[in-house]
Amino acid sequence: MPGNTFGHYFRITTWGESHGPALGVVIDGCPPCLTLDKTIIQKTLDKRRPGKGGPAESRRKEPDMVEILSGVFEGQTTGTPILLMIRNQDAQSQAYDQLRDVFRPGHGDYTYWKKYGIRDHRGGGRASGRETAARVAAAAVAQVFLDTLGIKVIAYTVALGKVRAQKRDLDAVYKNRLFCPDLEAAKGMEERIAEVRSKGDSVGGLVEILATGVPPGLGEPVFDKLDAELAKGLMSIGAIKGVEIGAGFRSAELLGSENNDPIAPEGFLSNNSGGILAGISNGDDIIVRAAVKPIPSISKEQDTITISEKPSKLRVGGRHDASAIPRIVPVCEAMVRLVLTDHILRARALVPDNWS
Amino acid sequence: MPGNTFGHYFRITTWGESHGPALGVVIDGCPPCLTLDKTIIQKTLDKRRPGKGGPAESRRKEPDMVEILSGVFEGQTTGTPILLMIRNQDAQSQAYDQLRDVFRPGHGDYTYWKKYGIRDHRGGGRASGRETAARVAAAAVAQVFLDTLGIKVIAYTVALGKVRAQKRDLDAVYKNRLFCPDLEAAKGMEERIAEVRSKGDSVGGLVEILATGVPPGLGEPVFDKLDAELAKGLMSIGAIKGVEIGAGFRSAELLGSENNDPIAPEGFLSNNSGGILAGISNGDDIIVRAAVKPIPSISKEQDTITISEKPSKLRVGGRHDASAIPRIVPVCEAMVRLVLTDHILRARALVPDNWS
Amino acid sequence: MPGNTFGHYFRITTWGESHGPALGVVIDGCPPCLTLDKTIIQKTLDKRRPGKGGPAESRRKEPDMVEILSGVFEGQTTGTPILLMIRNQDAQSQAYDQLRDVFRPGHGDYTYWKKYGIRDHRGGGRASGRETAARVAAAAVAQVFLDTLGIKVIAYTVALGKVRAQKRDLDAVYKNRLFCPDLEAAKGMEERIAEVRSKGDSVGGLVEILATGVPPGLGEPVFDKLDAELAKGLMSIGAIKGVEIGAGFRSAELLGSENNDPIAPEGFLSNNSGGILAGISNGDDIIVRAAVKPIPSISKEQDTITISEKPSKLRVGGRHDASAIPRIVPVCEAMVRLVLTDHILRARALVPDNWS
Amino acid sequence: MPGNTFGHYFRITTWGESHGPALGVVIDGCPPCLTLDKTIIQKTLDKRRPGKGGPAESRRKEPDMVEILSGVFEGQTTGTPILLMIRNQDAQSQAYDQLRDVFRPGHGDYTYWKKYGIRDHRGGGRASGRETAARVAAAAVAQVFLDTLGIKVIAYTVALGKVRAQKRDLDAVYKNRLFCPDLEAAKGMEERIAEVRSKGDSVGGLVEILATGVPPGLGEPVFDKLDAELAKGLMSIGAIKGVEIGAGFRSAELLGSENNDPIAPEGFLSNNSGGILAGISNGDDIIVRAAVKPIPSISKEQDTITISEKPSKLRVGGRHDASAIPRIVPVCEAMVRLVLTDHILRARALVPDNWS
Repeated sequence: MPGNTFGHYFRITTWGESHGPALGVVIDGCPPCLTLDKTIIQKTLDKRRPGKGGPAESRRKEPDMVEILSGVFEGQTTGTPILLMIRNQDAQSQAYDQLRDVFRPGHGDYTYWKKYGIRDHRGGGRASGRETAARVAAAAVAQVFLDTLGIKVIAYTVALGKVRAQKRDLDAVYKNRLFCPDLEAAKGMEERIAEVRSKGDSVGGLVEILATGVPPGLGEPVFDKLDAELAKGLMSIGAIKGVEIGAGFRSAELLGSENNDPIAPEGFLSNNSGGILAGISNGDDIIVRAAVKPIPSISKEQDTITISEKPSKLRVGGRHDASAIPRIVPVCEAMVRLVLTDHILRARALVPDNWS
Repeated sequence: MPGNTFGHYFRITTWGESHGPALGVVIDGCPPCLTLDKTIIQKTLDKRRPGKGGPAESRRKEPDMVEILSGVFEGQTTGTPILLMIRNQDAQSQAYDQLRDVFRPGHGDYTYWKKYGIRDHRGGGRASGRETAARVAAAAVAQVFLDTLGIKVIAYTVALGKVRAQKRDLDAVYKNRLFCPDLEAAKGMEERIAEVRSKGDSVGGLVEILATGVPPGLGEPVFDKLDAELAKGLMSIGAIKGVEIGAGFRSAELLGSENNDPIAPEGFLSNNSGGILAGISNGDDIIVRAAVKPIPSISKEQDTITISEKPSKLRVGGRHDASAIPRIVPVCEAMVRLVLTDHILRARALVPDNWS
Repeated sequence: MPGNTFGHYFRITTWGESHGPALGVVIDGCPPCLTLDKTIIQKTLDKRRPGKGGPAESRRKEPDMVEILSGVFEGQTTGTPILLMIRNQDAQSQAYDQLRDVFRPGHGDYTYWKKYGIRDHRGGGRASGRETAARVAAAAVAQVFLDTLGIKVIAYTVALGKVRAQKRDLDAVYKNRLFCPDLEAAKGMEERIAEVRSKGDSVGGLVEILATGVPPGLGEPVFDKLDAELAKGLMSIGAIKGVEIGAGFRSAELLGSENNDPIAPEGFLSNNSGGILAGISNGDDIIVRAAVKPIPSISKEQDTITISEKPSKLRVGGRHDASAIPRIVPVCEAMVRLVLTDHILRARALVPDNWS
Repeated sequence: MPGNTFGHYFRITTWGESHGPALGVVIDGCPPCLTLDKTIIQKTLDKRRPGKGGPAESRRKEPDMVEILSGVFEGQTTGTPILLMIRNQDAQSQAYDQLRDVFRPGHGDYTYWKKYGIRDHRGGGRASGRETAARVAAAAVAQVFLDTLGIKVIAYTVALGKVRAQKRDLDAVYKNRLFCPDLEAAKGMEERIAEVRSKGDSVGGLVEILATGVPPGLGEPVFDKLDAELAKGLMSIGAIKGVEIGAGFRSAELLGSENNDPIAPEGFLSNNSGGILAGISNGDDIIVRAAVKPIPSISKEQDTITISEKPSKLRVGGRHDASAIPRIVPVCEAMVRLVLTDHILRARALVPDNWS
């Protein structure tokens, strides 16, 4: 089985390369009779769009205008596949000519070559972060459905390199270009990016995703547990190297009596579980964190090899971000939206009464 | 879609409850003509078997004798489904009567009840760690296949609570009951378990899994990336709350120039990637770590509610482990074996020459 | 992907060989809180059981006693996988020794050998009709669910060789050993079987399946149409070589004005569609027919080859039926039950209100 | 699970409505390094294109120009998803205004309405035969792969209404507009179409599909048998109401001694099996037939109801074919190509040596 499909009921298949004519997504399984027009999708897409001039960003200018080519009739979804397409407009492929015969360290160049025996070297082809625009577009449709159930998902930056947010002020998230819930920390993060960029280097970070209003009962044991699917969804984003739920890695150091969330008639009295018990949502907030590695394309010189396996030195040119933060934040948000939507449809197949 | 199936080509479906008559697994998609007898499976199964008297263990005595009921003819796999069955023999269900009407904090009791409207309260039913015996059995079959390609997978304990292994001496792993690659640290871990147990509490830990001999090209972008599937597989184990690949969460603090693994004709010069680039194996060792939460069943008193949502106090009786370490170690190993096997079959569908 | 799983939500995986220790099925996705005990399953299973002494039957005596090993708690389904097992008791494998090195014409011997490079020659192994006992058992569970919605499925014999039923008297179906809805024709069929058997030959037939009480809206265009899935389900039964819906092959000779079913407020005025329009049920009766080939195991001498590709002559011994009719009738019924159940769960994922 | 995806490894997802801006397909799982340009696809697509003036055809003029938007780099497939898009150019949606509130007999209007609660009434929306253009385009890509293995697939008309081809002269197939392998019969078919059209009626027919060069070993028992998947694929075409393999329905009247294909060292001595035994290809030609119902859109007056369930009379206007023959012929061919391609990839996952 190929791997470009995510979800079982709300099922998306993304397609398109960074430097091809277009990229997009087919959504199959979207419930009918949802009000949908492209401005809703466009608005979400604009959050991750390159070229807005944010501190960490690539200078590629892409309007990322979405077109809906099917599945919507007179402003409503019909239950048939929804095709969303985004044209590539500012691909400068010649800038990548230097990469035709050499593998960039930390990139998929080497592995795509080994796997497929062919690769589109321009801008990373399919391995480009640009593919995630299609995910964000699809998740905007998912959110239209989640809205009908009162479920909200928000992602934000909790660390950039060693600069950490000290609080979770959700009102602050959209008031700074890094989606940081701590305006003070956001300043330190901007400084850190400027510093790293000036050295031709890049830096990683941490993203946290919070989902509220999630009813109990989502997740399909024993393998398609909600946390397992969230982990897969997030880890399928190129730059992410770690995922944790609730107390996560910290829980490895806790005692059972510290880690267990006591239960009261009004609900759980703490949330180390991150809203998931035995792989099923418990009605509390879902909390997930993802570790984002530094972007591998740097202008510092690195050791590498050519496709004929000769040693080589490389300084990556092109227009690259200095950190995947903040543009990865809406992508993390998107993956959580997609997982929740898919699991609601799955859950109601089994017991529809809980979801009507 | 229900969730008891894992893998797409080497596809396993586990079944059975902790206190039912039996549990087991159907393996569909096992390549034909592999030499298989039940002693190979039994040997692997014995590693996670309860009742061996390990320091952290439950006192439930289960021989965990596996039977092969189909798919093997004259000592060889036939390419048809392999059914493995393990009878439950030492279930003491009456010990769980106290749990019929009350939800254990940190357990799936509450969420199963909310999802299904019914639950088998005896020993956690399907949410019991006992389900993982079926995974370990299936993965022993997978390993027979991996052996034909020279691929090895080994898991070990790198932390128990705050006691951490200081080295990775793989020869030490099977020389201590905690599967710790550091015999000195193992002693500290045993002491910590004894201490925690004496207080009626439990403790978490960290497991690392190493796969060697893995060829480049495994993993199906963009969603079924090898790291995404490993994350899902590990996070589908009940007690696991976090997963990281290679440098993992540490990479969030690194610069690109520190995190990128330089490439030389002889291979990669470091392994922060954990052997995976852009979701595809790069030929280097695969390294994954999983955070294990403390077992929620403790004899300390906790606040909870009954199924009629009244407040209640609970001390969990029964025969519980004081830590999921070390019994979860072979389960982590199993999930990595299953993911690799599945991905080899998937990869060779696309480009068979790489795998013959 | 291997092929031993059927259905997407009510998903069954069958396992086991004709002459192995046991065969059975795992059902994953059965809705919780259905009343289920093994007598319901046993009763259905008894319909296709060999050794009842029917006119066309094998003389193998198998009690086909079903055991439920998981997924049921205190008489109710729990939403977790249900494992059903049937022990093989009267396998006389030595009778098949003559077949170890020779391929039976019309059988899967040759193709299994070519595909897998190994085959269990005893009784056809996995290709045996005996595998269908697992399907019938699983479908008995499906019917428990269908009963809650008032959906009934009945299959019957409409032709044996050239002897055809002239009417559809459903009351007659269980009053003759051939499940024929025409008692007069049933006598002719019995005579035909006796005649064919006396010559060491076998004969085919036609089965019709009728489902009543099916609500409109089942079927997932454009590929998983209800008729497409019924065709797949029926054609997956070894002996079936053709499937048609409603007017079927006859519709190829009709005019549009003859074939279209006029619509009135009270419903459709004819049923050439067989209850399915554009792949979705229309609320009318579902009608499907399947062509059953003569059983290939005959005691007449046939030309064949050995596994070393030398010419050979073969008279198949063993205990074979003279026709797959009537034992295939409950299997056809089973496949329709499974398809309908799966599609109800799928349909309510999309629009739950229709199904609550 | 939604239903717009076909295949497991060579997996296609079609999208688009008859009167939307465009329609198309994503192909995921196409092997890399195949030479592909759009002229190959266009040539195949032209075979089913409307508006060529064939005797049975709609007068809608659609150039059906295909665009490749992803998955091909410098003239070769890359192993990543291939998006094919066809713009709709001659949709005259106002012609369908009469259908907004009324259900056409024999069409999906009623069932789509019941299932989704919304329908795109223009030209049948997603239920239009126009959707099959996407299948034909995808199958042209599949054929590029099949060509590398020497596998050929050809479909042809064997009956139109009661006019039957008396021979199988494959050279004749592309020498007449009906794809009939008997030029004499083709004339009779043209006359029959003219006659039926003059009465405002329509007529059905039979299509046969022949695949040569197919190696033994394709098909995944016990449910994803090659014949089961062919039946599903063909039955998923809107107008098809019956499918048979090899001797098909005729085998129901045969004796075992007549129906079994004797085996000799040089191969099978007859082909009643249609090249498939126990669901696995046996190396002989694959032969399948499909029954095509008359197109339901006729200008004769019919009884029907409105969406408010009031009785109504309807004469369907618009530009409709008088028979789905011959335009359905390339679609049948396409489905067989897709099934074979998918099964080759599946088979080599299990045993790659057979396919390298």
